[in-house]
Amino acid sequence: MTSPLVIALDAMGGDRAPQVVVRGAELARERHPGVRFLMFGDEAKVEPLLGRYGDLAAVTTLRHTKDAILSEDKPSAALRGGRESSMWLAIDAVHKGEASAVISAGNTGALMVIAKFVLKTLPGIDRPALCGMFPNPRGDTAMLDLGANMRSSAANLTQFAVMGEVFARTVLGVERPIIGLLNVGVEDRKGIDAVREAAVLLRETDLPFEFKGFIEGTDITAGTVDVVVTDGFTGNVAAKTAEGIVRLFAGNLREAFRRDWLSKLGYLLARRSIQKMRERFDPRQYNGAMFLGLNGIVVKSHGGTDALGFANSIGVGVDMARHGFIDKMRHDFESLGTLKDTPRRAAASS
Amino acid sequence: MTSPLVIALDAMGGDRAPQVVVRGAELARERHPGVRFLMFGDEAKVEPLLGRYGDLAAVTTLRHTKDAILSEDKPSAALRGGRESSMWLAIDAVHKGEASAVISAGNTGALMVIAKFVLKTLPGIDRPALCGMFPNPRGDTAMLDLGANMRSSAANLTQFAVMGEVFARTVLGVERPIIGLLNVGVEDRKGIDAVREAAVLLRETDLPFEFKGFIEGTDITAGTVDVVVTDGFTGNVAAKTAEGIVRLFAGNLREAFRRDWLSKLGYLLARRSIQKMRERFDPRQYNGAMFLGLNGIVVKSHGGTDALGFANSIGVGVDMARHGFIDKMRHDFESLGTLKDTPRRAAASS
Repeated sequence: MTSPLVIALDAMGGDRAPQVVVRGAELARERHPGVRFLMFGDEAKVEPLLGRYGDLAAVTTLRHTKDAILSEDKPSAALRGGRESSMWLAIDAVHKGEASAVISAGNTGALMVIAKFVLKTLPGIDRPALCGMFPNPRGDTAMLDLGANMRSSAANLTQFAVMGEVFARTVLGVERPIIGLLNVGVEDRKGIDAVREAAVLLRETDLPFEFKGFIEGTDITAGTVDVVVTDGFTGNVAAKTAEGIVRLFAGNLREAFRRDWLSKLGYLLARRSIQKMRERFDPRQYNGAMFLGLNGIVVKSHGGTDALGFANSIGVGVDMARHGFIDKMRHDFESLGTLKDTPRRAAASS
Repeated sequence: MTSPLVIALDAMGGDRAPQVVVRGAELARERHPGVRFLMFGDEAKVEPLLGRYGDLAAVTTLRHTKDAILSEDKPSAALRGGRESSMWLAIDAVHKGEASAVISAGNTGALMVIAKFVLKTLPGIDRPALCGMFPNPRGDTAMLDLGANMRSSAANLTQFAVMGEVFARTVLGVERPIIGLLNVGVEDRKGIDAVREAAVLLRETDLPFEFKGFIEGTDITAGTVDVVVTDGFTGNVAAKTAEGIVRLFAGNLREAFRRDWLSKLGYLLARRSIQKMRERFDPRQYNGAMFLGLNGIVVKSHGGTDALGFANSIGVGVDMARHGFIDKMRHDFESLGTLKDTPRRAAASS
């Protein structure tokens, strides 16, 4: 008998915590039999909610925490004073081996600095990165970094490529992932120094994946690559631009179907197909950014998500844990040991 | 009697030149009575096409050019050897005052370096920027830079803000445009140095517009601002990400309406509303990136566009010329003369 998978939850993180966290956990419990939860939060608030879901309470251990990190707290302040917070203690449960992954919808900056401080990066990785998912015509594309860092050196970008590849291979199930480096054109001379230098590094290193070279913004949703590598500033802007366009498009579609009675009737007939399409672009389906590169699985849920979105974040953490993501990442970076300390790479970092 | 407006056209630029250029000019002629065209291109190819459109031929002067810059030519090579090309001579017509604007669907890099070399930047502007249009729920948002530069200093970004404001005021007709600086969050501490420093500069300077401060990628299509200011690398990625999402969404919508006979029937009923919505997101509606900051109006059409898209690019050039864009830009930068040489700004540039 294998021991059950335990997921640590920051019950106090997110705009509508702890309600959304508890209801999300209940949805995730139904989807992932055998998973247990270790919740961290204010007993007075969480206990009554758990009381409503007997099956969830049966697989959940609640640990009382007296502090919570607020969305407006500065990350540096959270790092100094947050040791008794639900977020910190949930992360610490992964560090101690009590849980296989931690999910939080709380303050992103605080989550990043505390997770990095508590869990540390894996050997061979200088900086962790936030990784998210985007739809493409044949499935999903992973993109990193979405904002854990602002600017990235060529060495950072090269490490992100390897991190993204391990994710695509183990969690998305792509046998030999195709990796692209986000740029403003596909020609060698295009772009900024760090990106050009990273392309040289990726071509020179013997990597267990296909490096496609430079790609453009259109490729994020085109299905030409499995993993998009970029710095955190650019990745954050691209992800939020995509979110904005989807919102505008969905709003316009809704209006179009309300324009006149013929359109309304048309909607009634096509409703099932349209709903299916809407689900494909539903941001809740893509909720859960993976904080990669750490010695532990950390998933950030959108702060404003609902129970369905939070359950999807838990699902991402469960998948990563079940696929032994951390061990595979450690293994890949060990076998690519040379990636870390060549003079070439050191020069590129500086 | 005022003299007619003359638009210079690079007849040899673009994937399907000169056909698309000539047919686009014919569409633009119908839309903009009183406009005349000065076309530069291979007589043997352009003359027969013009022969098909008598009304267009009547308002067009064709100048034979023996060279054409190819899409794969390096900008530096085009600058050295392109003096007899249709692109160069079309730009030169604006420089000589023979035309009020130039439109080209040719090599973007070559267009930028040749236009900058021939026309020079306006006083007070260090670097030109590419500006494009994006839909929002209440109209259009302008964004610059879309890739004329890669990285931008705080001073560059500040100038882009003023350039974008003049565009929004004169061409979009927004009385007091709202300008936002693209970042990864709205808090002061967020982002990269150049962006943070530009925010300080924009707050300190007495500008004829409302500076909203930092905005995020979602704001590009939210209608919260009239102008989005960013560096060329980020702007290019964001614009192409948006293009990719629109393409994926439109493809999925098409598929949804084909899924079963009920959906097909629904489409037939809602067709008029859906078509209207599609037009709103049609990339041809947004064809024409304005190359701002030069002493002359230069519009870049997408290389792969059709006649309708090219006609829209011509329309952008006509609008800018009719609104006296260059004079207003010159006037604004003259009255903001202090923007150029304060020690603060020099420090920020370095």
